[in-house]
Amino acid sequence: MTEITIIEPARIEARSFEIITEILGNKTFPAEQQGIIKRVIHTSADFDYADNLVFGHNAVKSGVAALKAGCTVVTDTRMAFAGINQKNLSKLGAAKACFIDDPQVMEQAKAGGVTRAAMAMELAARDAKNSIFAIGNAPTALLMLRDLILAGKLSPALVVGVPVGFVNVVEAKELFMELNVPYIVAKGRKGGSNVAAAIINALMLEALK
Amino acid sequence: MTEITIIEPARIEARSFEIITEILGNKTFPAEQQGIIKRVIHTSADFDYADNLVFGHNAVKSGVAALKAGCTVVTDTRMAFAGINQKNLSKLGAAKACFIDDPQVMEQAKAGGVTRAAMAMELAARDAKNSIFAIGNAPTALLMLRDLILAGKLSPALVVGVPVGFVNVVEAKELFMELNVPYIVAKGRKGGSNVAAAIINALMLEALK
Repeated sequence: MTEITIIEPARIEARSFEIITEILGNKTFPAEQQGIIKRVIHTSADFDYADNLVFGHNAVKSGVAALKAGCTVVTDTRMAFAGINQKNLSKLGAAKACFIDDPQVMEQAKAGGVTRAAMAMELAARDAKNSIFAIGNAPTALLMLRDLILAGKLSPALVVGVPVGFVNVVEAKELFMELNVPYIVAKGRKGGSNVAAAIINALMLEALK
Repeated sequence: MTEITIIEPARIEARSFEIITEILGNKTFPAEQQGIIKRVIHTSADFDYADNLVFGHNAVKSGVAALKAGCTVVTDTRMAFAGINQKNLSKLGAAKACFIDDPQVMEQAKAGGVTRAAMAMELAARDAKNSIFAIGNAPTALLMLRDLILAGKLSPALVVGVPVGFVNVVEAKELFMELNVPYIVAKGRKGGSNVAAAIINALMLEALK
């Protein structure tokens, strides 16, 4: 009944990436970052991400290696968790986890006067050898990871630090980028659970190549 | 251990909305649209949404009434589903549903050569009196809703039409806005599961006032 010419589903993604590449024009990126930057633009239709994603300390190489080794990806929200492609995780023998609604986390966050997201990171870090952390929402989660890293309690394979927002967000990202760990951070206010999931999904596609 | 002054969690959201209001400056919106537009900006840090959200046919009034009556909110993705606040849904006696990974949907989509998202809408529409549909990803889902409405098979309380992307997306939204049903659409390429969830969450806050 629909009158417009619909491009068939199987072609949509490839065509979308062609259009993104056309719009980016002469802009180039390091080869290993390209797939990630374009997938974030694909998920947001926001070309600001061509300029604001910062890759630190062999982020892509370290993240891809961890995924190939079957690591766990810890997210701060159920949305980011839901957005990470389960099929590709399974192919890699990797897993995802989110402790935001864990009863222990809820209880201890209340008792300690910290955010649930921060407490969820504390819990995840207790058993997090070679893990990837994907933070799309809570700057307090990113700051907790920083505290754990500085205290020598955590050595992540990669931290995707893309919380979004107007309070504490820019500051948390700037502080995190001073650390000597692999990270992918969206400078400024922008980011989100969708962006965090897109970055993990792009890394998985690299790992499956 | 963190050196920056962290605004306490309970104040973050209120302060964020104050900052958004400051940045918007003299820009004003109809009273009932304000909370929705600001919450979408809060979730994306993207002020383009101050200009691209279109409200058709008493969208807010109709959506809020349906939520107060305990309607079901049908989403196209698990991400949008995860992003809709369950506590507030429960307070309203409302529910959320997503059929994208329903075995029947997967089978029939394959057999019919259509997207799973479109088939999921077809299934949802069979029992959708007074429902709200929230589409953050798939333009094919929006076009399927349009076909069902034109065929007299569906009369939704509200359609949140905010798929994101580069192929079929702008066209699907433009076609949808010709319909005589309550809708909230993000004109252009932008949108996303996070935006769809934010709009539903904002409507619930209106309904709970």
